[in-house]
Amino acid sequence: MPLWYHTTMSNTEIHDEDTLIANCVFCNIVNGKIPSVKLFENEETLAFLDINPNTRGHTLVIPKAHHENIYGLPAETLARTMLTVQHVAIALKNELNADGINIVMNNESAAGQLIWHAHVHIIPRTNEDNGYVGQKYTYIAGEMEEIAEQIKGTLIL
Amino acid sequence: MPLWYHTTMSNTEIHDEDTLIANCVFCNIVNGKIPSVKLFENEETLAFLDINPNTRGHTLVIPKAHHENIYGLPAETLARTMLTVQHVAIALKNELNADGINIVMNNESAAGQLIWHAHVHIIPRTNEDNGYVGQKYTYIAGEMEEIAEQIKGTLIL
Repeated sequence: MPLWYHTTMSNTEIHDEDTLIANCVFCNIVNGKIPSVKLFENEETLAFLDINPNTRGHTLVIPKAHHENIYGLPAETLARTMLTVQHVAIALKNELNADGINIVMNNESAAGQLIWHAHVHIIPRTNEDNGYVGQKYTYIAGEMEEIAEQIKGTLIL
Repeated sequence: MPLWYHTTMSNTEIHDEDTLIANCVFCNIVNGKIPSVKLFENEETLAFLDINPNTRGHTLVIPKAHHENIYGLPAETLARTMLTVQHVAIALKNELNADGINIVMNNESAAGQLIWHAHVHIIPRTNEDNGYVGQKYTYIAGEMEEIAEQIKGTLIL
């Protein structure tokens, strides 16, 4: 995992909007400067595989616009983000044969937020796993791209 | 905690819609047959304090209509549920001086879902707590009602 992944500063530490966005990992994933394995994208939202997954297929859904967390998300942005979450969750469940799905949004450090661009975790679960917290999954080379291909085929809105 | 709290059967085990709703704890909270400490209510959604909380102020938000989990939620219902989540999360943060908020939706047993009526957890966090998973908070008599009064005062949509 690259060092910058967990070092994005909070909005409270950056007061210049342009600097903030230029330094935001997820804004840079949106604009393509940082690579990601994308599962789904529409005008307002993006879903991509978490590079530090708890389980196989662990996905992040973000609004493309920069918002720090849930508190300041415009209603329509929140709604569209959650519709993408639902859409991708169903695809992950079906395609990866998940027995369940955790949907988690951590807001602020005290709640475990590490990147200061609002994001929702979709964590596929199986009856055999031991809970997503603390659990880690390691992909082999090409596996993330394979999952993306599999999921993308079913994701047509 | 009453015994029936965790014994609601999955939709997959009950095929008659009326029986399903009659036996659903959260449907019975909506219709008032089972008491709850409510924080917020509008036409489509309800927020009430979890009786088995991880942290102080742990709240559940549900759509009033019976849906098992996120997979089958109509888009508008999902959107309205999440807007209530946002609204209540902000109130809990401000009124209970939370340092962060976890928002969690568990879908199916493998993901920890215990009640088969879609619900979203709002879990206020502090810098001093030890994580919400496994952590339990015990209210003293009257404390839940006190929180409800405090939050309700700020919750005007």
